[in-house]
Amino acid sequence: MVIHELTQEECRERLARTPFGRLACALENQPYVVPVRIAYEPNYIYMFSTAGQKIEWMRENPKVCIQVDEIPSESQWTSVIAIGHYQELAEPRYTAEKAHARELLEKYSRWWLTALAVRREKSTRDLSIEPIFFRIEIDSVTGLQALPEGEK
Amino acid sequence: MVIHELTQEECRERLARTPFGRLACALENQPYVVPVRIAYEPNYIYMFSTAGQKIEWMRENPKVCIQVDEIPSESQWTSVIAIGHYQELAEPRYTAEKAHARELLEKYSRWWLTALAVRREKSTRDLSIEPIFFRIEIDSVTGLQALPEGEK
Repeated sequence: MVIHELTQEECRERLARTPFGRLACALENQPYVVPVRIAYEPNYIYMFSTAGQKIEWMRENPKVCIQVDEIPSESQWTSVIAIGHYQELAEPRYTAEKAHARELLEKYSRWWLTALAVRREKSTRDLSIEPIFFRIEIDSVTGLQALPEGEK
Repeated sequence: MVIHELTQEECRERLARTPFGRLACALENQPYVVPVRIAYEPNYIYMFSTAGQKIEWMRENPKVCIQVDEIPSESQWTSVIAIGHYQELAEPRYTAEKAHARELLEKYSRWWLTALAVRREKSTRDLSIEPIFFRIEIDSVTGLQALPEGEK
């Protein structure tokens, strides 16, 4: 296995083709990481979530990190890390951007929210299932690729 | 799809059988997340790394979060999150624990370090490839599972 750094262009190409990533946020220096459905466009990563810990934390501290990878085998993988900051797509300031995010993530969000609705109907807690759309404005990206020896 | 919470036992069972996870650390409220090879034993997750950003950050701020998941399909997945803190297995205090970590991760670490050695031979920077073994002492675990409707 040989490891090398990905170029900026390769990193962004990986972000564009990978539908799932991990989003890390932090509050009072406690990190928290969750799997997320993502949609990349230069220079943003669009996502949504229902209200909860990660939204509260990112409102408080917008610094985030997103990681995506492809791991077909132990000796052949890529991992890309994007550092950026949280922008909640709240109206009226971000009406157009919110509509755009909804469109990008529509199929997935509709299906996911149906599942959440089922879960929360059964819950005794009064939890909103209104989706919150947001995006990460990317400040920097880095990536590594591992290949079996002999390949390029 | 129906989502429900995993029990403590189910969370730990997932940690035990999943060889890869994502480790998030933070410094000055900037989170950072990387994929890692893990070995779980109650109540610790063992790992190793070469010197670099994540080790420096965890020495500075031991609060971490580890996330593992299994995503066979969009409607069938589990995700487990462990919150804990960093313990570097430095000698002499942790001689026995370091030997134990080395044993747990031996096959993987030997292979990985060979790859790093190749990479760093080609580097102009003087980077050590001496592995640093560490473990996360787990403070809490939570998990979610999604199943297609009708399954249990």
